[in-house]
Amino acid sequence: MPVQRKLKMGMIGGGPGSFIGPVHYKAAIFDSKVELVAGAFSRDEEKSKKTGRQLHLNPRRIYHNYANMLETERILPAGERIDFVTIATPNDTHFFIAKEALKAGFHVMCEKPMTMNVDEARELQMIVNTTGKTFALMHNYTGYPMVKLARDMARQGKLGSIRKIIVQYPQGRHKHPFERLRRRNSGSIVDIGTHAENLAEYITGLRITHICADLQTLDNDPKLDYDGNCLLKFENGARGIIHVSKIATGQENDLAIWVYGSKKSIEWHQEQPNYLKVYEPDNPVQTWKRGNDYVAKISPAAERASRLPGGHPEAFLEAFANIYHNFCDTIIHKSLGKGVEAVINDFPKVSDGLRGMLFVDTALKSADSEEKWTKMPES
Amino acid sequence: MPVQRKLKMGMIGGGPGSFIGPVHYKAAIFDSKVELVAGAFSRDEEKSKKTGRQLHLNPRRIYHNYANMLETERILPAGERIDFVTIATPNDTHFFIAKEALKAGFHVMCEKPMTMNVDEARELQMIVNTTGKTFALMHNYTGYPMVKLARDMARQGKLGSIRKIIVQYPQGRHKHPFERLRRRNSGSIVDIGTHAENLAEYITGLRITHICADLQTLDNDPKLDYDGNCLLKFENGARGIIHVSKIATGQENDLAIWVYGSKKSIEWHQEQPNYLKVYEPDNPVQTWKRGNDYVAKISPAAERASRLPGGHPEAFLEAFANIYHNFCDTIIHKSLGKGVEAVINDFPKVSDGLRGMLFVDTALKSADSEEKWTKMPES
Amino acid sequence: MPVQRKLKMGMIGGGPGSFIGPVHYKAAIFDSKVELVAGAFSRDEEKSKKTGRQLHLNPRRIYHNYANMLETERILPAGERIDFVTIATPNDTHFFIAKEALKAGFHVMCEKPMTMNVDEARELQMIVNTTGKTFALMHNYTGYPMVKLARDMARQGKLGSIRKIIVQYPQGRHKHPFERLRRRNSGSIVDIGTHAENLAEYITGLRITHICADLQTLDNDPKLDYDGNCLLKFENGARGIIHVSKIATGQENDLAIWVYGSKKSIEWHQEQPNYLKVYEPDNPVQTWKRGNDYVAKISPAAERASRLPGGHPEAFLEAFANIYHNFCDTIIHKSLGKGVEAVINDFPKVSDGLRGMLFVDTALKSADSEEKWTKMPES
Amino acid sequence: MPVQRKLKMGMIGGGPGSFIGPVHYKAAIFDSKVELVAGAFSRDEEKSKKTGRQLHLNPRRIYHNYANMLETERILPAGERIDFVTIATPNDTHFFIAKEALKAGFHVMCEKPMTMNVDEARELQMIVNTTGKTFALMHNYTGYPMVKLARDMARQGKLGSIRKIIVQYPQGRHKHPFERLRRRNSGSIVDIGTHAENLAEYITGLRITHICADLQTLDNDPKLDYDGNCLLKFENGARGIIHVSKIATGQENDLAIWVYGSKKSIEWHQEQPNYLKVYEPDNPVQTWKRGNDYVAKISPAAERASRLPGGHPEAFLEAFANIYHNFCDTIIHKSLGKGVEAVINDFPKVSDGLRGMLFVDTALKSADSEEKWTKMPES
Repeated sequence: MPVQRKLKMGMIGGGPGSFIGPVHYKAAIFDSKVELVAGAFSRDEEKSKKTGRQLHLNPRRIYHNYANMLETERILPAGERIDFVTIATPNDTHFFIAKEALKAGFHVMCEKPMTMNVDEARELQMIVNTTGKTFALMHNYTGYPMVKLARDMARQGKLGSIRKIIVQYPQGRHKHPFERLRRRNSGSIVDIGTHAENLAEYITGLRITHICADLQTLDNDPKLDYDGNCLLKFENGARGIIHVSKIATGQENDLAIWVYGSKKSIEWHQEQPNYLKVYEPDNPVQTWKRGNDYVAKISPAAERASRLPGGHPEAFLEAFANIYHNFCDTIIHKSLGKGVEAVINDFPKVSDGLRGMLFVDTALKSADSEEKWTKMPES
Repeated sequence: MPVQRKLKMGMIGGGPGSFIGPVHYKAAIFDSKVELVAGAFSRDEEKSKKTGRQLHLNPRRIYHNYANMLETERILPAGERIDFVTIATPNDTHFFIAKEALKAGFHVMCEKPMTMNVDEARELQMIVNTTGKTFALMHNYTGYPMVKLARDMARQGKLGSIRKIIVQYPQGRHKHPFERLRRRNSGSIVDIGTHAENLAEYITGLRITHICADLQTLDNDPKLDYDGNCLLKFENGARGIIHVSKIATGQENDLAIWVYGSKKSIEWHQEQPNYLKVYEPDNPVQTWKRGNDYVAKISPAAERASRLPGGHPEAFLEAFANIYHNFCDTIIHKSLGKGVEAVINDFPKVSDGLRGMLFVDTALKSADSEEKWTKMPES
Repeated sequence: MPVQRKLKMGMIGGGPGSFIGPVHYKAAIFDSKVELVAGAFSRDEEKSKKTGRQLHLNPRRIYHNYANMLETERILPAGERIDFVTIATPNDTHFFIAKEALKAGFHVMCEKPMTMNVDEARELQMIVNTTGKTFALMHNYTGYPMVKLARDMARQGKLGSIRKIIVQYPQGRHKHPFERLRRRNSGSIVDIGTHAENLAEYITGLRITHICADLQTLDNDPKLDYDGNCLLKFENGARGIIHVSKIATGQENDLAIWVYGSKKSIEWHQEQPNYLKVYEPDNPVQTWKRGNDYVAKISPAAERASRLPGGHPEAFLEAFANIYHNFCDTIIHKSLGKGVEAVINDFPKVSDGLRGMLFVDTALKSADSEEKWTKMPES
Repeated sequence: MPVQRKLKMGMIGGGPGSFIGPVHYKAAIFDSKVELVAGAFSRDEEKSKKTGRQLHLNPRRIYHNYANMLETERILPAGERIDFVTIATPNDTHFFIAKEALKAGFHVMCEKPMTMNVDEARELQMIVNTTGKTFALMHNYTGYPMVKLARDMARQGKLGSIRKIIVQYPQGRHKHPFERLRRRNSGSIVDIGTHAENLAEYITGLRITHICADLQTLDNDPKLDYDGNCLLKFENGARGIIHVSKIATGQENDLAIWVYGSKKSIEWHQEQPNYLKVYEPDNPVQTWKRGNDYVAKISPAAERASRLPGGHPEAFLEAFANIYHNFCDTIIHKSLGKGVEAVINDFPKVSDGLRGMLFVDTALKSADSEEKWTKMPES
């Protein structure tokens, strides 16, 4: 491939004090395929300017209003205007910003949650389909190489038939979790349950069909669930558990998954992302380590998602960057009229966002129901 | 205390090929307070004799019929006859053998499950109360020192108020789990779920009040559950999960518990029994190790349950022996008309067996119900 | 095999307050092949009696003088008198007690160190050879099943040619290590260095030929080495390191070994004794776990040394018991005029004790030398 | 601070196929303070152009000759010309390229080894002093936050007096280590031993004074050492071990350090960089985790070196970027005539490079000597 110009990125949100904004920015430019050229970092003009200056942007392309940015950028000459926007604004604004950006002709990288409900998710999916733009949802944990290896093992049948899936996501680093929950106004199922759901479906390729949820909520506010335990049925009859918590005192971010197949089982922990444990009866436990040829042989996707050789650990940011890498290469390949190989077209889509919203919606309904099982609608 | 003669033990079950029989025997004599003097190891006369000879028993006290043993032994002179029997026979015989042994005037150490249903458990509880004999149920995992430490931390309020409890018990070492399940004819909830339930209640002192169970069964036989996932409510409002499995491919015996309190959390794994992990916000993770003074300060029970100094690992058999040790010292203290301190009177009782049967009964009912929550009756 | 009567054991040392005495006793009787019938537990008559009573000995066979015990026991009728003695007395008495016991016609299980110097070790070896009695030295760490597996892997060539061996033995649980060292009056090389040396030679079958030692000593007393670092050459040209310490603050008993071969490498930690890690290039790291068929296939010795299935952890005491088990079965097989299979005749011998003394002697000489390498004499 | 323009970087080396080149580039730009504007990536014109194009450089600033780059760039206007060069060329060229770059007025980031011998190192140190330019040596492992925490603990006396230091660096991922060694023509002491030496001195602040080395070499070439074991004396009397290997079969990059103090000890593993284990007698083992306030309180340097909150793992690249970050901020602060705080002026210097060369030189001399100790000259 001839060297392609860098894709031009415009950031919406991610102003002073944002945790996720700088992560997006660093991840986007990680592989030298993106340059940040514009941004509406905050609705506060001074704050937006401050961040823009720190990022060495051309002052004329620092906005404090996403709509203004979209309008201004869209009429810049091709090759100068931004190619895609990253949306890292408060949760309840993702949906309409994404809509506007797509309609204005830009590709979109969207922080999660994609929308606030299922209807919005379905609407957004239609818009993505209509506009033909490339849309990515930042489910960053599927960017980890060992998650891709797990998926490829599962999809290639190496685990046998999958019988049970457990995903945990315990958090509890903060001394005052309830105050924090109120301040952020976002429940555990939306905030981390969707990561758990996405991880399970990504790795196994199996869809959840039924949920039985028990959620604990704060202040009698059904959206302020701080702890959630869900029994699951999957489409092939496999059973599962997703349990998430904001009150898992002292736990940091130990998202972890166990997939039990008829032949083998696997275990992966986000805090130890370079390792995948593989179990089978009457054999030693195996620890697969990122960056080795034996991984590449099973999973070209894991290989593509690795930059450093074995023993040189990679972590959270690289996983984030892998989502950008595939998103960007997909945009580039499409713009060149080329097909997009599976190994590239491997990032969370609007359909994943819809699955997430269906999961949240169904879990909340189930929590409110006295019946054991609540069906999760098809997407 | 003046040196007490050894207690005399009679074993029922545990003949050739038994896994648990030799464990009972080794554990019983571990602390030099017990001698095995009689046994009805098998209903097959030759097999019983074979095991008895290997254990160097007096041939006259090798029986092949428990009833005969009870009758013969009860009329031997005090000091010669057995003090207690250990019941390590097939599951469905525990109840009536225990009944007979108690009525014949013997203390009883009983393998689990204690009975086959709740009614039997209640009946046995009444007999234990009536006879005044000491009865222990072999929930061996509560014999581990670090489990006792966890309990003492929880009971002393060091964890704060307990909000969530997760217990897992995944098994899957066998290549043909279903064949094995049919052969043993015992479901996962009875077999290992009761261990999980007992561990949760033992450590936290909280009782389960409601269960929402999803069990997978073999051959449409409700007793052949091979995988079980249960949501739980505890009496203080805490929530929980117990998940057990016979199809957790490649897992051996990783019974593990997480207890999340408002101040601290703890984590313990049976396969790494010498360690207890303690978490709290804004502090390093602590790994407490068995056999140290800082453990003894919090938990005299853990100290009593340790024989070796730190760094000299102890394991499964010592935990088993700890149950015997407390059972035997309780018998001895009572026989001397002395009070029994809490640290000694610390072994699973008939009441624990009843809790277990209630758990099994409620879980099976719940699995069969379309309602989310099934109330677990009080014991 | 017809059931053999239990071997009769006489204990020398192990009185009140002893750590290792009860370990010997529990380990000896662990497999129902030994009964303790006599003991000279302390030179203090009252103390000896106290321990003897606690162990339910016949008062006539409680001695407070080992010589008296040997004399008295030797003239008891065969079948009544003790078969072997266990020596668990202070270090500087092992040699002459062992001599006397062998000459009196008893088999001997001796705590380490076997002797105080090389000359004594050579003399004892001669006496063992002359008397034909069975002599075992309690290098308990070679009793672990996974150590036996490691040895069998190495000896079967599975590691390829061995190129490097590292053994560590860091200790530091005590707040005042120097006071403790003075009180025990035994240096780190004798106390734990010999375990490290024995482990290296046991697993690899390679003999150390040269040592370059740097020892730190207390009070200018060359025997009070509290920290020791040794470079090693092995007979096949492999290099190695043994490093031991009494000042490894906060460490408990993390004896560990790494053996690097041309094909594979292995790693084992005493505090996690049920696991053996196996490494090879371009393959997942393997964790071999005790109690599984795949272990038994490679190592019948590891299988024989296991009593519980996988996932039911075994530990320090079982390893200790394994030394007794093989020692006792060797005595029994010889007494029956039978050959002793390699898998049984697998316990530390007087020759291992001599190797240990040569190691200590050479390390101390090297520490005192300005030359890099000091040759370790052949045994 | 007002927003500073980005520093302009010129890369020498790092052309097609280079592992370390892209790491330097990604790390340099990681914190948005650097832009790559020029490069002499390869002496092969086509290769240099290829890499330059992939990195979107202005074609006029793609060179294939470092001397030409230095000459051309130095006469560009200030603000346009490069501020510093990164040297990622073959080992034997580092010295004279660094000399030329410094003399041409550029700051220098140099891959290790800094030079091929001590004399060159001393000469380079003089040139750095004379020119006043900022020089950094890429000992990337000291960029890890938990290494900085370890250093701050040690320097603040939290460990007490340091008594023993062990550093290991075992490698063995490659099936044919000897072929690889010949191809790379660089011994284990130079290649990884210097990392171990640097880590030990960085954390403890203690200098090695004596070395006793045993090196195994290939083809009788003293520079082709493939395995090295060194006993050490430190200036305060502490003892130590550095052992490195290219034949540690199956090991990847497990650089690890143990520092034993009179009060506490610490342990750190490069492959698990987010954790620092802290040991003390009669206390639970602590695992300190990156990204938490309790870390920041002890070590502002660790805090500065962290970008993500606890539980979001960081790894190799972030450590590398931390070296760049401090190097660049030092350049910026100096250019603004400001003092450079200790927390910023915290990156490996030419003096560290000299220490490394002294270590290599002394280790090789010692390996060739029959005397135990070889004195390491003062730097």
